Amino acid sequence: MSNWEKYVRKVVPYVPGEQPDRENMIKLNTNENPYPPAPGVRKILETFDAGRLRLYPDPAAGKLNSAIAEYYGVKKEQVFTGVGSDDVLAMIFMTFFNSEKPILFPDITYSFYEVWADMLRIPYNRIPLDENLCIRAADYQKECGGIIFPNPNAPTGELLLLAQVESIVQGNPDVFVVVDEAYIDFGGESALPLVEKYDNIIVVQTFSKSRSMAGSRIGFAISNEKVIRYLNDVKYSFNSYTMDALTIELGAKAIKDKEYFEMTRKKIIATREWTKEKLRGLGFECGDSMSNFIFVTHKDYSAEELYNALRKQDIYVRHFSRPERISNYLRISIGTEAQMQKLLDFLKSYMV
Amino acid sequence: MSNWEKYVRKVVPYVPGEQPDRENMIKLNTNENPYPPAPGVRKILETFDAGRLRLYPDPAAGKLNSAIAEYYGVKKEQVFTGVGSDDVLAMIFMTFFNSEKPILFPDITYSFYEVWADMLRIPYNRIPLDENLCIRAADYQKECGGIIFPNPNAPTGELLLLAQVESIVQGNPDVFVVVDEAYIDFGGESALPLVEKYDNIIVVQTFSKSRSMAGSRIGFAISNEKVIRYLNDVKYSFNSYTMDALTIELGAKAIKDKEYFEMTRKKIIATREWTKEKLRGLGFECGDSMSNFIFVTHKDYSAEELYNALRKQDIYVRHFSRPERISNYLRISIGTEAQMQKLLDFLKSYMV
Repeated sequence: MSNWEKYVRKVVPYVPGEQPDRENMIKLNTNENPYPPAPGVRKILETFDAGRLRLYPDPAAGKLNSAIAEYYGVKKEQVFTGVGSDDVLAMIFMTFFNSEKPILFPDITYSFYEVWADMLRIPYNRIPLDENLCIRAADYQKECGGIIFPNPNAPTGELLLLAQVESIVQGNPDVFVVVDEAYIDFGGESALPLVEKYDNIIVVQTFSKSRSMAGSRIGFAISNEKVIRYLNDVKYSFNSYTMDALTIELGAKAIKDKEYFEMTRKKIIATREWTKEKLRGLGFECGDSMSNFIFVTHKDYSAEELYNALRKQDIYVRHFSRPERISNYLRISIGTEAQMQKLLDFLKSYMV
Repeated sequence: MSNWEKYVRKVVPYVPGEQPDRENMIKLNTNENPYPPAPGVRKILETFDAGRLRLYPDPAAGKLNSAIAEYYGVKKEQVFTGVGSDDVLAMIFMTFFNSEKPILFPDITYSFYEVWADMLRIPYNRIPLDENLCIRAADYQKECGGIIFPNPNAPTGELLLLAQVESIVQGNPDVFVVVDEAYIDFGGESALPLVEKYDNIIVVQTFSKSRSMAGSRIGFAISNEKVIRYLNDVKYSFNSYTMDALTIELGAKAIKDKEYFEMTRKKIIATREWTKEKLRGLGFECGDSMSNFIFVTHKDYSAEELYNALRKQDIYVRHFSRPERISNYLRISIGTEAQMQKLLDFLKSYMV
């Protein structure tokens, strides 16, 4: 080993879900939206002046932030955007989680929290989900260096009610609480109103799921102006120009199309509920997911077996072999009704 | 102050150069390319299927990395791409600068180095440029935690010869040497061949200057495969999907157009040399910039005065009031010949 290798930050990297790319495959493994982005996105691509790319973009992504602010009825100065919600969350970890005390997050949750904490050397405690794989708000009433959880949680899809989220924020006034609402548009109630009431909460959302733009990498956070200023200071110390000129335009256009957003998100919710019902008919336990995926288990079939059988049909779902407590579950993203019908047809034929 | 504010990472943020946006202005303040990106970029925008944006991009940006690798004659596994070279450099600081010993960089250089070191709590020593505002390679032969410098340096534009760069890499086998070649295409000799000879060097370049794509945010690094693996591990621990689907396509297309690249870069070099000559005729000292900007001073006119006078004409250049040693200099980006002619005409009339 060369001597310089001693000074390398060695990390166990997060492994992104597989991104197979086969014709006619049914891709239900990374919670992508089955519908294309709002039609205005195509229009922007057609009319964008490529010559503008020679110039640096607006470092404050003003047009995008304004569009998001207008949509949610907050001030532009309350909005922070980044390269996907992962970028936003990493900046939040770096900015707000600098206590010696451990931060808290669920034991079964978005696996990136642990990765960021490890990389940034932030101490943490993982709080076990209850026996129904739900977050118990009361478990987060304790001394800590900060709190983060997805709502609905991933990969379970289980939702905390707004009153429960509020109890966590209210009970921890001395630390910062991050509510990761990547999946909130699929049936949950956002914690955004709490931003007006408490100064220690930040709400993070993304264009990757309900807005069908995972390929564009747009995440955002909303909080009070002071919090957003702190976050911007760190962001500007890391990379001033994170949002490219074209993505700013695409995002600003997409979020204005409320009608398309409502239509696609309602279709996904309807397909999810219908899929749950059908899967229950096949003997699956489905929980109560309020996201664009469901988390299912079957007492007679191992999740791994079903995962592999589906894969052979070019139907890709997600199986987590660890932690053991969820190793017999499958996370299935909600596709179109036709895609879910194919999944159901296969399972029905397989399970006779 | 709320208690949670105690745990906020407080930084003095980098302040990006002003981005005025006025009709008919002449923008020579942020080293942007006066020419549009390669014509293929427009074609990609016209043909890109917007529906693809619903899917996550390739986290490895394979198509872009392959195109860069092919262009430079290295393996795809030797290439790392990020959201502008700032993203690439920040990841490099995080990955490779973890010694207790200070890293070294010039006292007058890209101001972000100090910002990253401060934010990541990396100790550093700033090595003074010599009396001609040049990097003296011999000054970098000392115990340290790593080395970074731009070549050509910014904001001076002064170039180190390849043999001098090699002496720094060779003389510091136990630490990591980063050569930031944002401006190398405007007349310098790249350190890329050293990557085959030494395992402790990484070369960073960008699409923002010579490839006219500052608005797209594409930076990249080339080193040996092991170094790129370490860098990817940290990147995947921070944000797996940094390069959006469209930018991957735009970058891969742009870099293939060698003819357009050669034509525009040669035009800029010619305009630079012509501008230097004319400015010398007006009594300016111009140094020997090998970048797409020049760094000039005049013994009879204060830089601040000229900066303000130009600004009133809607001609924007850059003036750094600190450090004091360069406070009487202007950094002027090279625009089109017509733009430089207007700058020269005004200076001529102003200085009579």
